[in-house]
Amino acid sequence: MNTERLHRQIEFILEIDKLKSILRRSYLINDPRLENSAEHSWHLAVMAMLLAEHANTEVNLLQVLKMLLVHDVVEIDAGDTFCYDVAGNDTKAAREILAARRLFGLLPDDQRQEMHGLWEEFEARQTPEARFAAALDRLMPLLHNYHTQGRSWREHGVTQMQVLERNAHMDEGSETLWAYIEAMIEEASAKGYLAEESKNE
Amino acid sequence: MNTERLHRQIEFILEIDKLKSILRRSYLINDPRLENSAEHSWHLAVMAMLLAEHANTEVNLLQVLKMLLVHDVVEIDAGDTFCYDVAGNDTKAAREILAARRLFGLLPDDQRQEMHGLWEEFEARQTPEARFAAALDRLMPLLHNYHTQGRSWREHGVTQMQVLERNAHMDEGSETLWAYIEAMIEEASAKGYLAEESKNE
Repeated sequence: MNTERLHRQIEFILEIDKLKSILRRSYLINDPRLENSAEHSWHLAVMAMLLAEHANTEVNLLQVLKMLLVHDVVEIDAGDTFCYDVAGNDTKAAREILAARRLFGLLPDDQRQEMHGLWEEFEARQTPEARFAAALDRLMPLLHNYHTQGRSWREHGVTQMQVLERNAHMDEGSETLWAYIEAMIEEASAKGYLAEESKNE
Repeated sequence: MNTERLHRQIEFILEIDKLKSILRRSYLINDPRLENSAEHSWHLAVMAMLLAEHANTEVNLLQVLKMLLVHDVVEIDAGDTFCYDVAGNDTKAAREILAARRLFGLLPDDQRQEMHGLWEEFEARQTPEARFAAALDRLMPLLHNYHTQGRSWREHGVTQMQVLERNAHMDEGSETLWAYIEAMIEEASAKGYLAEESKNE
Protein backbone atom coordinates (compact mmCIF):
# COMPACT_ATOMS: atom_id res chain seq x y z
CA MET A 1 0.00 0.00 0.00
CA ASN A 2 1.09 3.54 -0.78
CA THR A 3 0.81 5.08 2.70
CA GLU A 4 1.59 8.60 1.57
CA ARG A 5 -1.24 8.46 -0.96
CA LEU A 6 -3.77 7.24 1.61
CA HIS A 7 -2.65 9.92 4.06
CA ARG A 8 -3.28 12.65 1.50
CA GLN A 9 -6.71 11.25 0.73
CA ILE A 10 -7.61 11.15 4.43
CA GLU A 11 -6.30 14.68 4.91
CA PHE A 12 -8.69 15.94 2.23
CA ILE A 13 -11.56 13.91 3.71
CA LEU A 14 -10.95 15.50 7.13
CA GLU A 15 -10.66 18.99 5.61
CA ILE A 16 -13.99 18.83 3.81
CA ASP A 17 -15.77 18.19 7.12
CA LYS A 18 -15.79 22.02 7.17
CA LEU A 19 -18.40 22.14 4.39
CA LYS A 20 -20.92 21.13 7.08
CA SER A 21 -20.39 24.56 8.68
CA ILE A 22 -20.92 26.62 5.52
CA LEU A 23 -24.43 28.06 5.72
CA ARG A 24 -26.58 28.80 2.69
CA ARG A 25 -29.56 31.20 2.52
CA SER A 26 -32.14 28.44 2.29
CA TYR A 27 -34.18 27.40 5.31
CA LEU A 28 -35.03 23.75 5.92
CA ILE A 29 -38.68 22.84 5.49
CA ASN A 30 -39.27 21.20 8.88
CA ASP A 31 -36.56 22.79 11.03
CA PRO A 32 -36.17 26.56 11.47
CA ARG A 33 -32.49 26.74 10.61
CA LEU A 34 -30.42 27.50 7.52
CA GLU A 35 -29.20 24.65 5.35
CA ASN A 36 -25.49 23.89 5.10
CA SER A 37 -23.67 23.12 1.86
CA ALA A 38 -22.79 19.51 2.73
CA GLU A 39 -26.36 18.38 3.36
CA HIS A 40 -27.45 20.42 0.33
CA SER A 41 -24.97 18.45 -1.81
CA TRP A 42 -26.41 15.18 -0.51
CA HIS A 43 -29.93 16.29 -1.34
CA LEU A 44 -28.99 17.20 -4.91
CA ALA A 45 -27.31 13.84 -5.42
CA VAL A 46 -30.43 11.92 -4.35
CA MET A 47 -32.49 14.20 -6.59
CA ALA A 48 -30.22 13.35 -9.53
CA MET A 49 -30.88 9.64 -8.98
CA LEU A 50 -34.65 10.19 -9.02
CA LEU A 51 -35.03 12.95 -11.61
CA ALA A 52 -32.44 11.99 -14.24
CA GLU A 53 -35.28 10.83 -16.49
CA HIS A 54 -36.36 14.49 -16.81
CA ALA A 55 -33.02 15.69 -18.24
CA ASN A 56 -33.34 17.09 -21.78
CA THR A 57 -30.88 14.54 -23.12
CA GLU A 58 -29.73 11.28 -21.62
CA VAL A 59 -27.08 11.93 -18.99
CA ASN A 60 -24.32 9.81 -17.45
CA LEU A 61 -25.64 9.59 -13.90
CA LEU A 62 -22.24 8.77 -12.36
CA GLN A 63 -20.78 11.94 -13.83
CA VAL A 64 -23.75 14.01 -12.58
CA LEU A 65 -23.37 12.56 -9.08
CA LYS A 66 -19.62 13.19 -8.97
CA MET A 67 -20.10 16.82 -9.99
CA LEU A 68 -22.88 17.42 -7.47
CA LEU A 69 -20.89 15.85 -4.65
CA VAL A 70 -17.91 18.17 -5.14
CA HIS A 71 -19.49 21.29 -6.68
CA ASP A 72 -19.63 23.24 -3.39
CA VAL A 73 -16.36 22.12 -1.75
CA VAL A 74 -14.70 25.40 -2.79
CA GLU A 75 -17.08 27.22 -0.43
CA ILE A 76 -14.94 26.02 2.48
CA ASP A 77 -12.55 28.84 1.60
CA ALA A 78 -14.69 31.03 -0.65
CA GLY A 79 -17.96 31.01 1.33
CA ASP A 80 -21.44 30.54 -0.09
CA THR A 81 -22.48 33.28 -2.51
CA PHE A 82 -26.23 34.02 -2.51
CA CYS A 83 -27.42 33.79 -6.09
CA TYR A 84 -29.24 37.16 -5.86
CA ASP A 85 -26.16 38.96 -4.46
CA VAL A 86 -24.85 40.90 -7.48
CA ALA A 87 -21.67 42.23 -5.84
CA GLY A 88 -20.83 38.84 -4.35
CA ASN A 89 -21.24 37.15 -7.70
CA ASP A 90 -18.77 39.59 -9.29
CA THR A 91 -15.94 38.31 -7.09
CA LYS A 92 -17.15 34.71 -6.76
CA ALA A 93 -15.06 33.24 -9.56
CA ALA A 94 -11.76 34.70 -8.33
CA ARG A 95 -12.36 33.55 -4.76
CA GLU A 96 -13.35 30.06 -5.85
CA ILE A 97 -10.37 29.56 -8.15
CA LEU A 98 -8.00 30.10 -5.22
CA ALA A 99 -10.11 27.83 -3.04
CA ALA A 100 -10.09 25.03 -5.61
CA ARG A 101 -6.32 25.27 -5.92
CA ARG A 102 -5.75 24.88 -2.18
CA LEU A 103 -8.43 22.32 -1.40
CA PHE A 104 -8.04 19.95 -4.33
CA GLY A 105 -4.28 20.43 -3.99
CA LEU A 106 -4.42 18.40 -0.77
CA LEU A 107 -5.10 15.30 -2.88
CA PRO A 108 -2.71 13.09 -4.86
CA ASP A 109 -2.10 14.60 -8.28
CA ASP A 110 -4.42 12.40 -10.34
CA GLN A 111 -7.31 12.96 -7.95
CA ARG A 112 -6.60 16.69 -7.70
CA GLN A 113 -6.98 16.84 -11.46
CA GLU A 114 -10.17 14.79 -11.47
CA MET A 115 -11.83 16.87 -8.72
CA HIS A 116 -10.75 20.12 -10.31
CA GLY A 117 -12.07 18.92 -13.65
CA LEU A 118 -15.45 18.02 -12.15
CA TRP A 119 -15.76 21.42 -10.52
CA GLU A 120 -14.81 23.22 -13.75
CA GLU A 121 -17.24 21.13 -15.78
CA PHE A 122 -20.05 22.00 -13.35
CA GLU A 123 -19.24 25.71 -13.42
CA ALA A 124 -18.92 25.88 -17.23
CA ARG A 125 -22.39 24.33 -17.78
CA GLN A 126 -21.48 23.11 -21.27
CA THR A 127 -22.04 19.35 -21.04
CA PRO A 128 -25.51 17.75 -20.71
CA GLU A 129 -24.43 16.40 -17.31
CA ALA A 130 -23.36 19.84 -16.04
CA ARG A 131 -26.53 21.47 -17.35
CA PHE A 132 -28.70 18.93 -15.61
CA ALA A 133 -26.67 19.18 -12.39
CA ALA A 134 -27.01 22.97 -12.48
CA ALA A 135 -30.77 22.67 -12.97
CA LEU A 136 -31.01 20.58 -9.80
CA ASP A 137 -28.83 23.12 -7.96
CA ARG A 138 -31.46 25.75 -8.79
CA LEU A 139 -34.47 23.51 -8.22
CA MET A 140 -33.88 22.74 -4.56
CA PRO A 141 -33.63 26.32 -3.19
CA LEU A 142 -36.79 27.17 -5.11
CA LEU A 143 -38.57 24.23 -3.48
CA HIS A 144 -37.17 25.27 -0.09
CA ASN A 145 -38.39 28.82 -0.54
CA TYR A 146 -41.83 27.83 -1.75
CA HIS A 147 -42.33 25.35 1.08
CA THR A 148 -41.27 27.86 3.74
CA GLN A 149 -43.71 30.53 2.47
CA GLY A 150 -40.85 32.34 0.71
CA ARG A 151 -38.92 32.90 3.94
CA SER A 152 -35.52 33.57 2.39
CA TRP A 153 -37.01 35.52 -0.56
CA ARG A 154 -38.86 37.77 1.90
CA GLU A 155 -35.80 38.31 4.08
CA HIS A 156 -33.84 39.51 1.05
CA GLY A 157 -36.65 41.32 -0.79
CA VAL A 158 -36.31 39.08 -3.85
CA THR A 159 -38.74 39.79 -6.70
CA GLN A 160 -40.47 37.47 -9.16
CA MET A 161 -38.41 38.98 -12.00
CA GLN A 162 -35.16 38.21 -10.19
CA VAL A 163 -36.22 34.62 -9.57
CA LEU A 164 -37.19 34.11 -13.19
CA GLU A 165 -33.97 35.66 -14.52
CA ARG A 166 -31.64 33.84 -12.14
CA ASN A 167 -33.19 30.45 -12.73
CA ALA A 168 -34.19 30.46 -16.39
CA HIS A 169 -31.06 28.46 -17.30
CA MET A 170 -32.76 25.48 -15.68
CA ASP A 171 -34.41 24.84 -19.03
CA GLU A 172 -31.01 24.04 -20.58
CA GLY A 173 -30.83 21.04 -18.26
CA SER A 174 -34.49 20.10 -17.99
CA GLU A 175 -37.42 21.76 -19.71
CA THR A 176 -39.75 19.56 -17.65
CA LEU A 177 -38.38 20.75 -14.32
CA TRP A 178 -38.30 24.35 -15.50
CA ALA A 179 -41.98 24.17 -16.52
CA TYR A 180 -42.79 22.79 -13.07
CA ILE A 181 -40.86 25.61 -11.41
CA GLU A 182 -42.30 28.36 -13.61
CA ALA A 183 -45.78 27.36 -12.46
CA MET A 184 -44.57 27.29 -8.84
CA ILE A 185 -43.10 30.79 -9.13
CA GLU A 186 -46.44 32.05 -10.45
CA GLU A 187 -48.17 30.53 -7.44
CA ALA A 188 -45.54 31.92 -5.08
CA SER A 189 -46.12 35.36 -6.50
CA ALA A 190 -49.89 35.05 -6.20
CA LYS A 191 -49.47 34.02 -2.57
CA GLY A 192 -47.33 37.08 -1.82
CA TYR A 193 -44.06 35.21 -1.19
CA LEU A 194 -42.14 37.46 -3.59
CA ALA A 195 -41.53 41.20 -3.35
CA GLU A 196 -43.28 43.65 -5.68
CA GLU A 197 -41.16 45.01 -8.54
CA SER A 198 -39.89 48.53 -7.76
CA LYS A 199 -41.41 51.08 -10.17
CA ASN A 200 -38.13 53.02 -10.23
CA GLU A 201 -36.03 50.21 -11.60
CA MET B 1 -44.96 14.58 -19.14
CA ASN B 2 -46.45 12.35 -16.45
CA THR B 3 -47.39 14.98 -13.87
CA GLU B 4 -48.49 12.47 -11.25
CA ARG B 5 -45.06 10.76 -11.44
CA LEU B 6 -43.15 14.03 -11.03
CA HIS B 7 -45.37 15.03 -8.11
CA ARG B 8 -44.59 11.79 -6.29
CA GLN B 9 -40.87 12.24 -6.89
CA ILE B 10 -41.00 15.80 -5.56
CA GLU B 11 -43.02 14.67 -2.54
CA PHE B 12 -40.26 12.20 -1.62
CA ILE B 13 -37.58 14.84 -2.21
CA LEU B 14 -39.38 17.23 0.16
CA GLU B 15 -39.89 14.48 2.76
CA ILE B 16 -36.20 13.52 2.93
CA ASP B 17 -35.32 17.09 3.91
CA LYS B 18 -36.00 15.70 7.41
CA LEU B 19 -32.82 13.60 7.31
CA LYS B 20 -30.97 16.89 7.96
CA SER B 21 -32.53 16.94 11.43
CA ILE B 22 -31.56 13.39 12.42
CA LEU B 23 -28.57 13.68 14.72
CA ARG B 24 -25.84 11.06 15.00
CA ARG B 25 -23.44 10.53 17.93
CA SER B 26 -20.41 11.85 16.04
CA TYR B 27 -19.10 15.36 16.63
CA LEU B 28 -17.81 17.44 13.74
CA ILE B 29 -14.07 18.06 13.75
CA ASN B 30 -14.12 21.86 13.52
CA ASP B 31 -17.54 22.72 14.93
CA PRO B 32 -18.74 21.61 18.38
CA ARG B 33 -22.01 20.10 17.29
CA LEU B 34 -23.28 16.63 16.43
CA GLU B 35 -23.32 15.52 12.82
CA ASN B 36 -26.62 14.90 11.04
CA SER B 37 -27.32 11.92 8.81
CA ALA B 38 -27.72 13.91 5.58
CA GLU B 39 -24.29 15.58 5.72
CA HIS B 40 -22.84 12.24 6.88
CA SER B 41 -24.24 10.58 3.74
CA TRP B 42 -22.64 13.26 1.57
CA HIS B 43 -19.28 12.75 3.25
CA LEU B 44 -19.38 8.99 2.67
CA ALA B 45 -20.21 9.49 -1.00
CA VAL B 46 -17.19 11.76 -1.54
CA MET B 47 -15.06 9.24 0.34
CA ALA B 48 -16.25 6.48 -1.98
CA MET B 49 -15.10 8.52 -4.99
CA LEU B 50 -11.64 8.95 -3.50
CA LEU B 51 -11.09 5.63 -1.74
CA ALA B 52 -12.65 3.12 -4.15
CA GLU B 53 -9.15 2.05 -5.18
CA HIS B 54 -8.72 0.58 -1.66
CA ALA B 55 -11.71 -1.80 -1.94
CA ASN B 56 -10.72 -5.47 -1.73
CA THR B 57 -12.20 -6.18 -5.14
CA GLU B 58 -13.09 -3.78 -7.92
CA VAL B 59 -16.43 -2.12 -7.20
CA ASN B 60 -19.06 -0.45 -9.36
CA LEU B 61 -18.73 3.10 -8.05
CA LEU B 62 -22.20 4.19 -9.21
CA GLN B 63 -23.78 1.38 -7.20
CA VAL B 64 -21.68 2.28 -4.13
CA LEU B 65 -22.73 5.94 -4.40
CA LYS B 66 -26.42 5.12 -4.81
CA MET B 67 -26.35 2.89 -1.72
CA LEU B 68 -24.52 5.45 0.39
CA LEU B 69 -26.87 8.25 -0.66
CA VAL B 70 -29.98 6.38 0.48
CA HIS B 71 -28.65 4.09 3.25
CA ASP B 72 -29.76 6.36 6.12
CA VAL B 73 -33.07 7.67 4.75
CA VAL B 74 -34.99 5.17 6.94
CA GLU B 75 -33.71 7.06 10.00
CA ILE B 76 -36.29 9.77 9.29
CA ASP B 77 -38.84 7.46 10.91
CA ALA B 78 -36.61 4.99 12.76
CA GLY B 79 -34.06 7.39 14.25
CA ASP B 80 -30.28 6.92 14.29
CA THR B 81 -29.15 3.86 16.27
CA PHE B 82 -25.77 4.29 17.96
CA CYS B 83 -23.62 1.35 16.91
CA TYR B 84 -22.58 0.62 20.54
CA ASP B 85 -26.21 0.63 21.78
CA VAL B 86 -26.99 -3.10 22.20
CA ALA B 87 -30.67 -2.70 23.10
CA GLY B 88 -31.26 -0.21 20.29
CA ASN B 89 -29.65 -2.54 17.77
CA ASP B 90 -32.00 -5.36 18.79
CA THR B 91 -35.03 -3.39 17.60
CA LYS B 92 -33.32 -1.50 14.76
CA ALA B 93 -34.27 -3.88 11.94
CA ALA B 94 -37.98 -3.91 12.79
CA ARG B 95 -38.16 -0.13 13.07
CA GLU B 96 -36.30 0.39 9.81
CA ILE B 97 -38.40 -2.06 7.81
CA LEU B 98 -41.53 -0.04 8.62
CA ALA B 99 -39.70 3.19 7.83
CA ALA B 100 -38.51 1.91 4.46
CA ARG B 101 -42.03 0.85 3.56
CA ARG B 102 -43.51 4.29 4.28
CA LEU B 103 -40.70 6.46 2.92
CA PHE B 104 -39.84 4.62 -0.30
CA GLY B 105 -43.59 4.06 -0.74
CA LEU B 106 -43.95 7.77 -1.51
CA LEU B 107 -42.16 7.15 -4.83
CA PRO B 108 -43.49 5.76 -8.12
CA ASP B 109 -43.43 1.95 -8.01
CA ASP B 110 -40.26 1.35 -10.06
CA GLN B 111 -38.29 3.85 -7.98
CA ARG B 112 -39.72 2.53 -4.72
CA GLN B 113 -38.37 -0.87 -5.70
CA GLU B 114 -34.96 0.48 -6.70
CA MET B 115 -34.51 2.50 -3.49
CA HIS B 116 -35.71 -0.38 -1.34
CA GLY B 117 -33.33 -2.71 -3.14
CA LEU B 118 -30.37 -0.38 -2.58
CA TRP B 119 -31.14 -0.13 1.12
CA GLU B 120 -31.51 -3.92 1.45
CA GLU B 121 -28.28 -4.51 -0.45
CA PHE B 122 -26.45 -2.13 1.87
CA GLU B 123 -27.87 -3.75 5.00
CA ALA B 124 -27.18 -7.33 3.84
CA ARG B 125 -23.47 -6.61 3.19
CA GLN B 126 -23.17 -9.46 0.71
CA THR B 127 -22.01 -7.73 -2.49
CA PRO B 128 -18.52 -6.19 -2.88
CA GLU B 129 -20.21 -2.79 -3.30
CA ALA B 130 -22.20 -3.14 -0.06
CA ARG B 131 -19.15 -4.36 1.86
CA PHE B 132 -17.10 -1.42 0.69
CA ALA B 133 -19.93 1.03 1.42
CA ALA B 134 -20.29 -0.43 4.92
CA ALA B 135 -16.55 -0.06 5.50
CA LEU B 136 -16.80 3.66 4.69
CA ASP B 137 -19.82 3.97 6.99
CA ARG B 138 -17.58 2.69 9.82
CA LEU B 139 -14.48 4.62 8.78
CA MET B 140 -15.88 8.12 9.13
CA PRO B 141 -17.16 7.96 12.74
CA LEU B 142 -13.80 6.48 13.75
CA LEU B 143 -12.03 9.40 12.09
CA HIS B 144 -14.45 11.82 13.76
CA ASN B 145 -13.82 10.29 17.15
CA TYR B 146 -10.06 10.20 16.80
CA HIS B 147 -9.89 13.80 15.59
CA THR B 148 -12.09 15.07 18.44
CA GLN B 149 -9.94 13.34 21.10
CA GLY B 150 -12.49 10.54 21.41
CA ARG B 151 -15.28 12.90 22.44
CA SER B 152 -18.20 10.62 21.64
CA TRP B 153 -16.37 7.47 22.85
CA ARG B 154 -15.70 9.18 26.19
CA GLU B 155 -19.28 10.40 26.56
CA HIS B 156 -20.55 6.84 26.15
CA GLY B 157 -17.72 5.00 27.93
CA VAL B 158 -16.80 3.01 24.82
CA THR B 159 -13.85 0.59 25.21
CA GLN B 160 -11.14 -0.43 22.75
CA MET B 161 -12.60 -3.96 22.64
CA GLN B 162 -16.03 -2.62 21.68
CA VAL B 163 -14.52 -0.50 18.91
CA LEU B 164 -12.54 -3.41 17.53
CA GLU B 165 -15.50 -5.79 17.64
CA ARG B 166 -18.01 -3.38 16.15
CA ASN B 167 -15.77 -2.33 13.29
CA ALA B 168 -13.83 -5.48 12.37
CA HIS B 169 -16.17 -6.13 9.43
CA MET B 170 -14.47 -3.21 7.70
CA ASP B 171 -11.89 -5.71 6.48
CA GLU B 172 -14.54 -7.44 4.35
CA GLY B 173 -14.77 -4.23 2.33
CA SER B 174 -11.21 -2.95 2.54
CA GLU B 175 -8.28 -4.59 4.28
CA THR B 176 -6.23 -1.48 3.57
CA LEU B 177 -8.64 0.84 5.36
CA TRP B 178 -9.07 -1.60 8.23
CA ALA B 179 -5.29 -1.79 8.72
CA TYR B 180 -5.19 2.03 8.80
CA ILE B 181 -7.99 2.09 11.38
CA GLU B 182 -6.53 -0.67 13.57
CA ALA B 183 -3.37 1.38 13.95
CA MET B 184 -5.47 4.47 14.73
CA ILE B 185 -7.43 2.62 17.42
CA GLU B 186 -4.15 1.57 19.04
CA GLU B 187 -3.04 5.19 19.10
CA ALA B 188 -6.42 6.32 20.41
CA SER B 189 -6.14 3.83 23.23
CA ALA B 190 -2.59 4.92 24.07
CA LYS B 191 -3.79 8.53 24.19
CA GLY B 192 -6.56 7.65 26.64
CA TYR B 193 -9.46 8.33 24.26
CA LEU B 194 -11.05 4.93 25.03
CA ALA B 195 -12.40 3.62 28.35
CA GLU B 196 -10.56 0.87 30.26
CA GLU B 197 -12.07 -2.60 30.00
CA SER B 198 -14.10 -3.49 33.09
CA LYS B 199 -12.39 -6.33 35.02
CA ASN B 200 -15.78 -7.83 35.93
CA GLU B 201 -16.83 -8.47 32.38
